[in-house]
Amino acid sequence: MTTPWNDRFSHRMARVRASEIRELLKLLDQPDIISFAGGIPDPALFPAGRIASTYAEVLAEAAPQALQYSVSEGLPELRRWIAARMTAAGAPCDEGNILITAGSQQALDLIGKLFLSPGDTVLAERPTYLGALGAFNAYEPSYADLAQPPPAWTKLAYIVPDFANPSGRTLTRAERTALLDMAHERDVVVIEDAAYRDLRFAGGAEPSILALDIARTGSIEDARTLYCGTFSKTLSPALRLGWVCAPRAVIDKLVLLKQGGDLHVSTINQMVAARVVAEGWDSHLERLRAAGRERAAAMQTALARHMPMGVTWTRPQGGMFVWVELPHGFDGAALLEAALAEERVAFVPGAPFFAVEPDAATLRLSYSLPPPDAIDEGIRRLARAIDARMAHGSPRARAS
Amino acid sequence: MTTPWNDRFSHRMARVRASEIRELLKLLDQPDIISFAGGIPDPALFPAGRIASTYAEVLAEAAPQALQYSVSEGLPELRRWIAARMTAAGAPCDEGNILITAGSQQALDLIGKLFLSPGDTVLAERPTYLGALGAFNAYEPSYADLAQPPPAWTKLAYIVPDFANPSGRTLTRAERTALLDMAHERDVVVIEDAAYRDLRFAGGAEPSILALDIARTGSIEDARTLYCGTFSKTLSPALRLGWVCAPRAVIDKLVLLKQGGDLHVSTINQMVAARVVAEGWDSHLERLRAAGRERAAAMQTALARHMPMGVTWTRPQGGMFVWVELPHGFDGAALLEAALAEERVAFVPGAPFFAVEPDAATLRLSYSLPPPDAIDEGIRRLARAIDARMAHGSPRARAS
Repeated sequence: MTTPWNDRFSHRMARVRASEIRELLKLLDQPDIISFAGGIPDPALFPAGRIASTYAEVLAEAAPQALQYSVSEGLPELRRWIAARMTAAGAPCDEGNILITAGSQQALDLIGKLFLSPGDTVLAERPTYLGALGAFNAYEPSYADLAQPPPAWTKLAYIVPDFANPSGRTLTRAERTALLDMAHERDVVVIEDAAYRDLRFAGGAEPSILALDIARTGSIEDARTLYCGTFSKTLSPALRLGWVCAPRAVIDKLVLLKQGGDLHVSTINQMVAARVVAEGWDSHLERLRAAGRERAAAMQTALARHMPMGVTWTRPQGGMFVWVELPHGFDGAALLEAALAEERVAFVPGAPFFAVEPDAATLRLSYSLPPPDAIDEGIRRLARAIDARMAHGSPRARAS
Repeated sequence: MTTPWNDRFSHRMARVRASEIRELLKLLDQPDIISFAGGIPDPALFPAGRIASTYAEVLAEAAPQALQYSVSEGLPELRRWIAARMTAAGAPCDEGNILITAGSQQALDLIGKLFLSPGDTVLAERPTYLGALGAFNAYEPSYADLAQPPPAWTKLAYIVPDFANPSGRTLTRAERTALLDMAHERDVVVIEDAAYRDLRFAGGAEPSILALDIARTGSIEDARTLYCGTFSKTLSPALRLGWVCAPRAVIDKLVLLKQGGDLHVSTINQMVAARVVAEGWDSHLERLRAAGRERAAAMQTALARHMPMGVTWTRPQGGMFVWVELPHGFDGAALLEAALAEERVAFVPGAPFFAVEPDAATLRLSYSLPPPDAIDEGIRRLARAIDARMAHGSPRARAS
């Protein structure tokens, strides 16, 4: 090449970087490591038998359709089922308000593509979902803290209101209302990432932000909340199935971007999902919640048992994640290196989860994969790694 | 909403419009219409039995892996198989040069995202593939005619060298070499869209542009051609499986965009494809080619039999498409309206296939779906619709 490749790439590539989590996950295949790093569901909980029999059924009954191109907005029967679920959960809508996406990751990418011109401001929580930043960054936004009054011309506010990745936090009803007050007052569009919403194992469900928005405006067509759902944590991430529920004016444009981007989601996977969720879905979700409840409790018990003073953590009501704050002066990345080398335990350092001004003295733990006894042993090891570094004297207690 | 949705969307949305083809295809479900419109494979030719047994096999043998997240670059065994095929076809490479994409549509989108800043120039054929324009438009390029000397700072040249959509044309060896001469001299990156390459039914295969580029530079790492392949026309479009074969410096960046865009292609679909193509793939392709040969011949015979003087068309050596040039003054879109109303025959008007200065007196015919007798009857009807409008006197013979 006359010109080096890096000089040919678009401006946006200055913002697109390798994910530290992804590079990390490649190193965690060794069997003696106890890993709290991966934010992935336990494959033992996938309804694998049901999925297998449904692929067979779909291909026996409707192979020509299942193997053919299909429309960009997604399979009508799957969109209708989702719209009915959303309606039953307090967000009245119909299939015209639903776009099927390749997981909710693609929903975030398409929403970024639709709304963000370079320099537009996105509000995000501290910490926020790393994958959302990965999707939005390609559209070159600025970020600001959702907890501060937003700058003028703020376009989007991104939030995971239920058992967030990475924080495990859930917004109260009052916090949801306050967010909508701000969004309506400042004319901001809200992206509600509901990736974990179906995985509540404690406490009472809060209405979705979209439901509260519709209750306020009277119709989804007048709402300003774009709800992103997914089957990745409940059915299987491998089928790559998620959705956006939003006003038609937004869905219609997202459909055009979906078409230009990859035409449509796998037809056969959509047909299989539509049949699997049509029957016994709620009892399947109940099994997932029971498993989450058990593992979350094991992690809380282990943290309380092993962690030294000065370390704090969240107590999630669902989902997969606990967020740990270490004393000031700790660096999550350095701790990971030590924890892997000395204790064979893994987690994700917290800094990459901040859109601006990272707090390095943080880390994310996932309890979705290890069995309860491994959770106890892993937390014991992690606590030992933290203790060893506290003994070195550098960290200071946080002001709280 | 205080602000209308259209005022919130990004700058790029000024370039993103509904596809006329897509809107059109929605109208073609009536059974009395003979349609040459859809550019879709005949579902009767999908290896449906093999695909069904392979889903069952994969889920019986490896459900936890098949239903789990997987790496953004794609399944290693599928990437290795593709690299071996590319190598055997004269483009030596390894799995590090392969990214699995959701069909070649996503390959085009990711390449546009990687290279195009607003205003960058893309060279395209006249006519060119509408879906490529749909992918690139979101990145706000300018277009110029590939047949003219490129403007300074031209970034990309996009070409379908084998039985192009929509023209059916194939580049000669000399034309491929001339394109590479231009690309090397003017420092342009070439996107080779090989969507139909496996479907040659006449004439001898030409080397891919990538193969010629590697022969010139000595290594794929020094080549400037990005090859986009797909399983959509050979295995099934519904699995959404394509690939990019390119220098690692490009693949590494595309992987980051794939990760931020939708994480990865469906794991189970990749595992199924890897097993299906591993055995008997060449004899399957031979069956597809035989079907294409028969239908293409039927269309050529019908065109020669029915079309009035002044109408010309291409004679493809593979793929699915014939490009028809009508006398000056014809408008393909108006002809379609008349042909549907009066003759119940459908095709795609040619104008949307031009990146700049559309030639409206053109249309695209696909012979992939109708059986040979329907092809003859459909072309008879189309010829009658053309004749009726020629009798009205407006069209003039083209200078040729």
